[in-house]
Amino acid sequence: MVDLAPDPNKPATKIAVIGLGSMGFGIAESLIRARHEVAGYDVRPEVTARFAAGHGGRLRCAASPAEVAAGAGIIVVVVVNADQTAAVLLGEDGAVSAAPRGAVVVSCATMAPERARKLAREVTARSLLFLDAPISGGAQRAREGALTVLVSGSEAAFTAAAQALDAIAAKLYRLGCEPSIGSSFKIVNQLLVGVHIAAACEAIALAKQLGLDIAKVYEVIKASAGNSWMFKNRVPHILEGGYSPRSATSIFTKDLGIVVDIERAGTFPAPLSSAALQLFLMTAAAGMAHDDGASVVRLFARIAGLEVPAHKV
Amino acid sequence: MVDLAPDPNKPATKIAVIGLGSMGFGIAESLIRARHEVAGYDVRPEVTARFAAGHGGRLRCAASPAEVAAGAGIIVVVVVNADQTAAVLLGEDGAVSAAPRGAVVVSCATMAPERARKLAREVTARSLLFLDAPISGGAQRAREGALTVLVSGSEAAFTAAAQALDAIAAKLYRLGCEPSIGSSFKIVNQLLVGVHIAAACEAIALAKQLGLDIAKVYEVIKASAGNSWMFKNRVPHILEGGYSPRSATSIFTKDLGIVVDIERAGTFPAPLSSAALQLFLMTAAAGMAHDDGASVVRLFARIAGLEVPAHKV
Repeated sequence: MVDLAPDPNKPATKIAVIGLGSMGFGIAESLIRARHEVAGYDVRPEVTARFAAGHGGRLRCAASPAEVAAGAGIIVVVVVNADQTAAVLLGEDGAVSAAPRGAVVVSCATMAPERARKLAREVTARSLLFLDAPISGGAQRAREGALTVLVSGSEAAFTAAAQALDAIAAKLYRLGCEPSIGSSFKIVNQLLVGVHIAAACEAIALAKQLGLDIAKVYEVIKASAGNSWMFKNRVPHILEGGYSPRSATSIFTKDLGIVVDIERAGTFPAPLSSAALQLFLMTAAAGMAHDDGASVVRLFARIAGLEVPAHKV
Repeated sequence: MVDLAPDPNKPATKIAVIGLGSMGFGIAESLIRARHEVAGYDVRPEVTARFAAGHGGRLRCAASPAEVAAGAGIIVVVVVNADQTAAVLLGEDGAVSAAPRGAVVVSCATMAPERARKLAREVTARSLLFLDAPISGGAQRAREGALTVLVSGSEAAFTAAAQALDAIAAKLYRLGCEPSIGSSFKIVNQLLVGVHIAAACEAIALAKQLGLDIAKVYEVIKASAGNSWMFKNRVPHILEGGYSPRSATSIFTKDLGIVVDIERAGTFPAPLSSAALQLFLMTAAAGMAHDDGASVVRLFARIAGLEVPAHKV
C-alpha cells in the first residue's frame, strides 16, 4: 500500500488502482501528482514491485485486490478485459470482499456492454457503487492525466468517483445512467479506430506499390478528405519505422474481437469490422502482435514485396 | 461558345470546359467569375443548353468538343472517367483535332494512372500539352473556386494551365513531372474516402443497434481517435436525413471500382477497399445509386431493422 504525502486539504479518500500496466501505471501517476493517497496492485508481482520502486521507493505494494481495496473509497480497475475485471473484483481475495460499504468501482477495461451491465449488478448487490468508464488516449495521456473517459452509471457513483476522474481525464463524457452505455460508446470508437488504422496501412502500401513518395502522400492526404485521426497520428511513425506500441496489434485483435462478437450476437453484418480484424490477426500471426498496430503496413509490404522503413528498435 | 466580358487586362487565353455536370459547371462558373473568356460543352445537349442559359442568356454553346476547343489555350476536361475523357479528346470531332498547337489539356477525371499516362502520350503526340489534374472537394467547392487539385505533368503544361488552376483551386499540389502521379494520389485518397464513409455508416448503424443516441455518438466520436474527415463531414447529414448527393453512391462504386481494378492488376490484396466497394454496390443495388454515399447507413438500417432519420427529399 502506498502512502505518499497526500494533500492535507483534500478530503481523505483513498484511491486503489488495480492493474499497473502502461495505462494503470499512468493513471496512478496522475492520481499521485494530484496529491491523492494512492494504493497500487497488479496480479503480476514484478509489475507491482516496479510500481512500488517509484517515487524514491516510498511506495508500498498490496499483495491482493482485497488488500489494496481495504479502506479505499475509489477503486479504479485498469486491466485488459471483462474476465480480468471480474476476477480482481469478485474472485478469490477480490476487491469487493474488502472494500468499504459505499465505495465506487471505476471499471476502465474495454468490454461488451452486456458484461459491464452484469458486473454492475454484481458489484452493486454488495453495497458498492459501479461506474462503467472505459478510457481512450494511450499511455502518454494516461501519465499526463489527459485521457478521454466515457462514463455511464448512477449519479451517486459519478459523484463518488469525481475526484479520481478529475485527475485522470481531459475529456469526460457523461453518457447516461445505465452501466453499458459507456462501453457501447467505446465499442463504436474502437470499430472506427481499428478500421481507420488498417485502412491507413492499406492505402500507404498501395501508394508504395504505385511508386509514390509516401512522405508526400502523408502530406497531401492529411490535408484532404481522405484524412482520419488515426491516419494523421500514426502514419508519421510508419515513415520513421517506429513500431514501438502506442497501441499494439494485440489490442486491436482484442477490441475488434469484442466488436465482431457483439455484431454477430446481434445478427448485425459488419464487413469492415470483420476485414480489419482479419488484417490485425494476420499481422499478429506474422509475429507482430506486440508491435504497434500500424504494423499492418509491414504485413502488406512483406506480402507484396514492397519496401517501407524497417522497424527501428 | 461563350464570350462573357473578359477582363481586358488579362492575357487573352480562351478556356474551354468540356463536361458541364455539377463539377464542370462549378469550374466554369469559377473561371467566369475570375473574368476569363470561357466556352462550355457537354455531350448532353440539354446540359449544354442549361449552362448557356446562365448569366442572362449571354452564353452560347458549342456543338462538339472540336468546336469548343477551337482557339482555346486551355481545355479543362471534367467528365466522369477515362473512357469519356478519351472520347471527347480523341474521338470523332474530338477537342484535340481542333485545339491550337501548344494548347494544354487539363484532365480532371479520376482514372487509373496507366490511363492518364496513355492519354498524355496520345495528346502530346499531337503537339498539345497534358496535365494529369484530378480534383477533389465536391460541387460546392467547385463553384467557389476552392477545389483541391492534384497535379502532375511537364513544367510547360503546368505553366500553360496556371491561369485556370489559379481560378479553380484553393489547394494545388504539384506532385511530379510524370502524368499518372496526380491520378495515383487521387486513387489513394479515394480508397480512404470510400472506406471511411462506409465505416462511418457501419459504426453509426451499430450504435443504433446498441440503442445509443446517435447525435451523442457523433459528438463524442468527432472529438475522439475514431474521427475521420468523412465521419465529421457526412454524419450530420445522416442525423438530418439528408441524402441529396454530396458525392453519390455511384461515384463510390466507380472510384472504388478503379481502386480494386488497380489493386488486382498489381496483385495487391486489399480487404478493406474490397469490402467497402461491396457495401456501395449493395447500396446501389438497393436503389440508392443516385443518393449520397452515406446511404450505406440506410442499407444497414433496412437489413437490420433499425430506425435512422428517413430521407428528406
